[in-house]
Amino acid sequence: MPDYKAPLRDTRFLISDVFDFPGSYAAIGAHDATPDMVEAILEEGAKFCEQVLAPLNRSGDEEGCQFDNGVVTTPKGFKEAFAQYVEGGWNGLAADPTYGGQGLPHSLGLLISEMVGASNTSWGMYPGLTHGAMSAIHAHGSEAQKQTYLTALTEGRWTGTMCLTEPQCGTDLGIIKTRAVPQADGSYAISGTKIFISAGEHDLSENIVHLVLAKLPDAPAGTKGISLFIVPKFLPTATGEVGARNSLSCGSIEHKMGIKASATCVMNFDEATGFLIGEPNKGLNCMFTMMNHARLGTGMQGLCLGEVSYQGALRYANDRLQMRALTGAKAPDKVADPIIVHPDVRRMLLTMKALNEGNRALAYFTAQLIDQAHGAAEAEQRAEAEGLLALLTPICKAFMTESGLEVTNLGMQVYGGHGYIREWGMEQLVRDCRIALIYEGTNGIQALDLLGRKVLGSQGKLLRGFTKIVHKFCEAQGAHPQLAAQVAELATLNRQWGELTQRIGMAAMNNPDEVGAASVDYLMFSGYVILAYFWLRMAVVAQAQLDAGSGDAAFYQAKLATCAFYFKRVLPRTAAHLAAADAGSDCMMALPAAHFGV
Amino acid sequence: MPDYKAPLRDTRFLISDVFDFPGSYAAIGAHDATPDMVEAILEEGAKFCEQVLAPLNRSGDEEGCQFDNGVVTTPKGFKEAFAQYVEGGWNGLAADPTYGGQGLPHSLGLLISEMVGASNTSWGMYPGLTHGAMSAIHAHGSEAQKQTYLTALTEGRWTGTMCLTEPQCGTDLGIIKTRAVPQADGSYAISGTKIFISAGEHDLSENIVHLVLAKLPDAPAGTKGISLFIVPKFLPTATGEVGARNSLSCGSIEHKMGIKASATCVMNFDEATGFLIGEPNKGLNCMFTMMNHARLGTGMQGLCLGEVSYQGALRYANDRLQMRALTGAKAPDKVADPIIVHPDVRRMLLTMKALNEGNRALAYFTAQLIDQAHGAAEAEQRAEAEGLLALLTPICKAFMTESGLEVTNLGMQVYGGHGYIREWGMEQLVRDCRIALIYEGTNGIQALDLLGRKVLGSQGKLLRGFTKIVHKFCEAQGAHPQLAAQVAELATLNRQWGELTQRIGMAAMNNPDEVGAASVDYLMFSGYVILAYFWLRMAVVAQAQLDAGSGDAAFYQAKLATCAFYFKRVLPRTAAHLAAADAGSDCMMALPAAHFGV
Repeated sequence: MPDYKAPLRDTRFLISDVFDFPGSYAAIGAHDATPDMVEAILEEGAKFCEQVLAPLNRSGDEEGCQFDNGVVTTPKGFKEAFAQYVEGGWNGLAADPTYGGQGLPHSLGLLISEMVGASNTSWGMYPGLTHGAMSAIHAHGSEAQKQTYLTALTEGRWTGTMCLTEPQCGTDLGIIKTRAVPQADGSYAISGTKIFISAGEHDLSENIVHLVLAKLPDAPAGTKGISLFIVPKFLPTATGEVGARNSLSCGSIEHKMGIKASATCVMNFDEATGFLIGEPNKGLNCMFTMMNHARLGTGMQGLCLGEVSYQGALRYANDRLQMRALTGAKAPDKVADPIIVHPDVRRMLLTMKALNEGNRALAYFTAQLIDQAHGAAEAEQRAEAEGLLALLTPICKAFMTESGLEVTNLGMQVYGGHGYIREWGMEQLVRDCRIALIYEGTNGIQALDLLGRKVLGSQGKLLRGFTKIVHKFCEAQGAHPQLAAQVAELATLNRQWGELTQRIGMAAMNNPDEVGAASVDYLMFSGYVILAYFWLRMAVVAQAQLDAGSGDAAFYQAKLATCAFYFKRVLPRTAAHLAAADAGSDCMMALPAAHFGV
Repeated sequence: MPDYKAPLRDTRFLISDVFDFPGSYAAIGAHDATPDMVEAILEEGAKFCEQVLAPLNRSGDEEGCQFDNGVVTTPKGFKEAFAQYVEGGWNGLAADPTYGGQGLPHSLGLLISEMVGASNTSWGMYPGLTHGAMSAIHAHGSEAQKQTYLTALTEGRWTGTMCLTEPQCGTDLGIIKTRAVPQADGSYAISGTKIFISAGEHDLSENIVHLVLAKLPDAPAGTKGISLFIVPKFLPTATGEVGARNSLSCGSIEHKMGIKASATCVMNFDEATGFLIGEPNKGLNCMFTMMNHARLGTGMQGLCLGEVSYQGALRYANDRLQMRALTGAKAPDKVADPIIVHPDVRRMLLTMKALNEGNRALAYFTAQLIDQAHGAAEAEQRAEAEGLLALLTPICKAFMTESGLEVTNLGMQVYGGHGYIREWGMEQLVRDCRIALIYEGTNGIQALDLLGRKVLGSQGKLLRGFTKIVHKFCEAQGAHPQLAAQVAELATLNRQWGELTQRIGMAAMNNPDEVGAASVDYLMFSGYVILAYFWLRMAVVAQAQLDAGSGDAAFYQAKLATCAFYFKRVLPRTAAHLAAADAGSDCMMALPAAHFGV
């Protein structure tokens, strides 16, 4: 399988040269996160991921999880790796020190989760879901709940889940059937069936804390009648230890296309004891705290798997000898040239590189916004960061996973026939990536969230929060000696973005279907424009470093070359998405449902 | 899993209304292929595929092939289905009557293979490879070879393979190592290892006829030194029965992403007895006879799997209740509306439908060309058909598989989380389709074949053979009352196609890398333009039928609606491919190979 090396050079470039994480950490008062400390954490994290998690990735896929009478066994080595992860303090890295965490910035947690997800996506689901549960309890739990559950989750003694989906509903949570009946002692009896519950049952931790959406007996219909409950596998004792077994169980695990080492469980709750978290009937709000976290994490999976795929494809393209370069032999001493000499192989590699590194910049920018939304000194700064986060979260989730699927497919294609063979590991990356376009809200739902709720729902305000930044950048760099042409192209696209939004907004006033008709192409258009902006930010920095005669010229030159490739070969896709988003809903709504199959 | 119903309504529309197969059959003297006979064959074929092959598709994927000490066992039911297929006369349908075939038109064979591939892609590999071997022996074998091997293959007693790939080479057959040493009796001793051999070993037939590329001792280097050999698993006796076991064996089978019920074998030849077929050192030419057949067959896999995926997605979209339509409840009596009310679900379904039906038109047009290339009365007609076939074959292979992968992924996406679960069958379609972009020459190789060998290699002549047809169509339909705007759009794209070709041709004179840099985007651009042409041909017919007040108005209206969708929502992709194909090679060749990973 492709080895994984954490791309620390690119990480350092982004956090030091492009986004100034040190300055940002100082501004939010994260004084522990000194550059030396950050560097040490990144290096230790990389070592753990490369040496402990990555070697379990292929075997985890082949073994899968085993289910036997309610007991789920994870693949060989998973349990030990989790113990090492907890032991190393990774689980609580960015968690609240009041409950056992180390209080480092959220963005640093995201950098570590990038390495975890890249080295072993399935394994990363267990801590990933736990972190989601931690944020929901931190935001909405009572002090007692935090003391008991958040502490145990932060310390990695217990793990967490999100129990939303039921057989009859995923997207449409308003029609869940799970019921919560109040008990005399203030707890609730939870009954119902949840499906697709990642990490719902496993052998990594002594207890599992389920966060379950359910309806109270008197709840209003629809999404305004959903409440959130903590339903632990084992009820905690008064001292916060593992106590009596709760009446819930795993009924089966799914057999899936990929992430086979992640246990996807059917969970049956049979009058299980649950504890309300947050206000009654406000469960969906609480759940969104988890989901926003999870959506960014899901977007990261696209980047993570794309990175591993690129590393594998690059190695193969340098090793595999096949045909001569069209311009004459490049390795005349060998039986054929390495395939990296062929333009079309380079097209695939550069598309992968351009999407990966662009997505990484987007992800780190977003991570920095999370820090600022939590920790900026001024309320206005926090609100601005929140606004940008709200806009960018669905784009991170959907665009980064769509491009992750493209990238992992390209990586497989570079391998030719070997790409299709399991032992080479490239096809697993495609299979593991594929779910990321579906779960945590399908990409279609993300697009509706972006265009309907965020952009049009704010009368364009959230969008202007970002296009204003792009506009200022273009003004500042409009006369850039090397990059002016690309800056002008970005400025045009940025203007088109606003104009397209206005046209859809106008059309939607007469016909709400216009939003759904345009949404996915709108999101993809947005993603390509955003990546163009980040590519230029990276290029401006790279050019400045070259002009200043900094060392590592090869790195900066590669950035500039990849930026040029992105503008010439990838960015033209905006034209197709713009035309499609502009095409109106008539051509998709005209055909009666009954006539799709005539 | 998704049921499969052969889309006979669409087949009838294409062969009767759009392409006039009856007239074409009369013109090539295929007098047996009367409309009644064709209809009966299609209905019987559909029954066999729907009732015998389709039910073995999911179980075949779960079971896979088993390997035990050189023996390969196919999944349960495969052997019996093959016996029924042979018994029903399907194997020799379009084969030469001199050697036991029924002599029906090749196009009719392709219509049957469409249903076979859709109902069970893995199973279809066994007869598919056999048909490839049959065409090579028919075209290049001696009379004695035809009597022995072609007859047994046609009768389905024996099956065939193509043995090209070796561990060190797939694309670059010039560097194969398998050796053929002449023996005193006129045979050859074949030694070497071949990999990725589909149907290389299995339990469906009493003998397996390997067509093996190997080098004679005095062969020139490179592709001009390759010869083709018949190397049977069991040597035939003088009467053409199964005789002594030859010294070749299956060393192992691959574990793959998909087509798991197709045995992909490592074949070891250890001084096995082989018989030269065709001229010495002309083996690649002979092999191309098989490969052209196989490339169209591979393209068909994209269509086949796309069709099944569409049928599944459409059923799910009508059944699954989730959320209300943005314009208000459409099924107020139910807990939610069927998801087909949502514009984005319709976008996915219509994209699938538009690509599938467009690809089917392309495939049938190409199938008709095969009939004409073989059977047209005049040499000029045959040459014209040959020229169009040469142009369209790489497009069928690559474009239809790229779109097949998109379609199967969309079908999976319509299912949401259930799409990722194996038992629903939708993810298998993606996995089975994925190989079609790789084998029989990767899609990158197809694109080089199209642009380098076919288009530029003929100084544009082969391209003009097709653009001329489009041009004439646009002239004839330029004032069409309903479709004039789309006709004008097609005319513009058709002109751009020629102009793009000229620009690349000019650039390539100075720099051969320009061909490789543009090729894949050029092929995709070509594919979308070609589908636009076929969509308009279908739309013109559909409109005429509606104007004439024919029954089945819903079918024709759906054609028109899907055509409109294709032009508005899919065809704009040409803009992106045009810009990328035009972008030149500099941005992909500038970065030194050593700097891709800095």
